[in-house]
Amino acid sequence: MSEATVERLALIGAGLIGSSIARAAREFGAAGACVIYDSAPDVRARVRALGIAEAVADNLAETVTAADLVIICTPVGACGDVAKRIAPHLKVGAIVSDVGSVKGAVVAQVARHLPSHVHFVPAHPIAGTEFSGPDAGFATLFCNRWCILTPPANVDEHAVQRLDAFWTRIGAKVERMSPAHHDKVLALTSHLPHLIAYNIVGTADDFGEQTRSEVIKFSASGFRDFTRIASSDPTMWRDIFLSNQEAVLEMLGRFNEDLSALQKMIRLGDGEGLFDFFTRTRAIRRSIIEQGQDTAAPDFGRRDA
Amino acid sequence: MSEATVERLALIGAGLIGSSIARAAREFGAAGACVIYDSAPDVRARVRALGIAEAVADNLAETVTAADLVIICTPVGACGDVAKRIAPHLKVGAIVSDVGSVKGAVVAQVARHLPSHVHFVPAHPIAGTEFSGPDAGFATLFCNRWCILTPPANVDEHAVQRLDAFWTRIGAKVERMSPAHHDKVLALTSHLPHLIAYNIVGTADDFGEQTRSEVIKFSASGFRDFTRIASSDPTMWRDIFLSNQEAVLEMLGRFNEDLSALQKMIRLGDGEGLFDFFTRTRAIRRSIIEQGQDTAAPDFGRRDA
Repeated sequence: MSEATVERLALIGAGLIGSSIARAAREFGAAGACVIYDSAPDVRARVRALGIAEAVADNLAETVTAADLVIICTPVGACGDVAKRIAPHLKVGAIVSDVGSVKGAVVAQVARHLPSHVHFVPAHPIAGTEFSGPDAGFATLFCNRWCILTPPANVDEHAVQRLDAFWTRIGAKVERMSPAHHDKVLALTSHLPHLIAYNIVGTADDFGEQTRSEVIKFSASGFRDFTRIASSDPTMWRDIFLSNQEAVLEMLGRFNEDLSALQKMIRLGDGEGLFDFFTRTRAIRRSIIEQGQDTAAPDFGRRDA
Repeated sequence: MSEATVERLALIGAGLIGSSIARAAREFGAAGACVIYDSAPDVRARVRALGIAEAVADNLAETVTAADLVIICTPVGACGDVAKRIAPHLKVGAIVSDVGSVKGAVVAQVARHLPSHVHFVPAHPIAGTEFSGPDAGFATLFCNRWCILTPPANVDEHAVQRLDAFWTRIGAKVERMSPAHHDKVLALTSHLPHLIAYNIVGTADDFGEQTRSEVIKFSASGFRDFTRIASSDPTMWRDIFLSNQEAVLEMLGRFNEDLSALQKMIRLGDGEGLFDFFTRTRAIRRSIIEQGQDTAAPDFGRRDA
C-alpha cells in the first residue's frame, strides 16, 4: 500500500459520514492515524466500542491539536460554532475541511473564525444513505462517488491537492467548482428531491388512519420509493434548507411551473402532451446508469421485499 | 402440487404484467394451460421464443375461445376496445378480469361490451418494475404483493372466489374494495408519486446541457431515486392519468397545499417547523418495512452502483 495521504486525521462528528471516513481512511491506508470526536457522549462511547479510529477524543482541543487534516462532519448548522471553538487549537499549516451539503453560507460561517495559518478547503462528498449514526457508516461509502471541492481563490494549491489525494485514496472522484454553482446544482439534484419526498410522505400522513394503513400496504406501487429519502436525518435536512434557501426556492419555483403544466395536461385530457413528457424523462435514467451512478437492476435490485 | 385453479387461462397483452402472469401460472401450477396474445407481431414472436406459455395466439378470437379465465393485460386505454372485440368469442361462464391501475373508468368501458353469460371481476395487482415488455417479466413478481379485486355488487361470488384463488396461488395477497375507493388510494400511493417523479426529472431535463450532465453525475444525492419510476412505460402512464383524472387532481391539490406550506417555512427560516415535518415522515417508512413492502437495506440494497 502506498504512503498515507495525511499523517494525522481529525474528524469532528461521528455520524454516517464521519464514521465512514474513519473506516475508509483505515481500509485504504489514507491516514497515519485518525482521532474522532462527537459532541454526544453516547456516540463517543459507541465509536470506542466499534474501534474504528486510533483515538476517540473527549473535547475539541484534544481532537484537532497536532492534526494535519481536520474534517468537520457535523450538520451544516453547527459548522460555524465548531470552527470558532477549534480555531485556537489548530496546528500551523493544517488543512481544515468539511462535508457539508451546502457550501456558500457554510463556507462564510466557518472561514471567518479560522486563523490565517491554516488552509480552508471546503468539500462535499456526494454519498450517503438514509441511515444515521456511527453504526450506519461503512468503508466503501465513497467509492465511485463524486466529492466536490470548493476552494477559495486565494487558497494554497498544494493544500487543495493534498485534500484531493485524500478523497481519491478513499475511492472518490474529485471535482472542483464555486460554492455558488455547487449550491445551485445540489439544490436541484439533492435538496429539491428531498423536499418533494418529505412533502409527499407528509401529504399521505395527513390522511386518517385507514387511508394511511392502505398507503403502507400498497406502497410498492410507487410511494415507497419516496419514503427512503424522506426518512433521512431531520436535523441535517433542516439545516440544509435553512442554509440554501435561495437556490432551493428557485428550483422549487421551476418545479412548480412544470407541475402546473402537467396538471393542466391532465385536466384537459392532453394525452399527446403527457406521452411526450413521459418519454423524454427516460433518457436521463439511462445516462445515470451508464455512468455507474445507479444500478440497472429492476426495482433498484431490492431483494428483501 | 395442488390442482390448477383454472383449466384454461387466456392472457391479452404480453408486457411486464402479462408475461409475468404466464410465468407465474406455470411456476405455481395455477392454470392447466395458458394461451397468450399480444397485438404486436414482434412481441408474439418473442413470447414464442421465450416459451413461457403453452400457446401464442395470432388473434383475439383464438385467444379467448374455450378460456375459463381471460385477463386483459393491456394499457388501460385499450381495455374497452379489447372487451368489444373478444365479447362474441367468450365461453359461457368464463371469468373476465384485467390488471389495470385504474378501476372506475376502465370497469365502465369494459363492462358495457361483455355479454351477460360471463363474470366480470376487475383486478389490480400492485406489482411491477420500471421495465416493460415480455423479457422484463418474472414468475415471482406478485409474491407478497397485494392484488385488489373490485367486484361489482351483482357478480357471482363463486367467480370472485375463483379469481381470488388464482392470485393467491401465484403468491399475491388479495383484498377487495370499491372501484372509487381503489382509484382514490392508488391516486395517492402510485399515480401522484409517478407524476411527481416524472415532473422533477422533467425540471432537470429543461436545464441546458452542462447542468444536465452535472445532475447525472451527482444524482446519488437524491435525484436518482426519482428517475427509476420516471422511466416507466409512457403509454401505460398516459392512460392512467387520462382515466383517473379526478382523483389524481384531488391528490395533486393536497400535495400542492402541503408544498406551499413547506415553501413558506423555508422562506421564513422556520427551523422548528421544518424539523417537525421531517421527523414525522420517518414513521411511515418504518411501517412499510415492518409490513414487508420494502427492504430495510441502505439505499434499497443497491449493489451495482
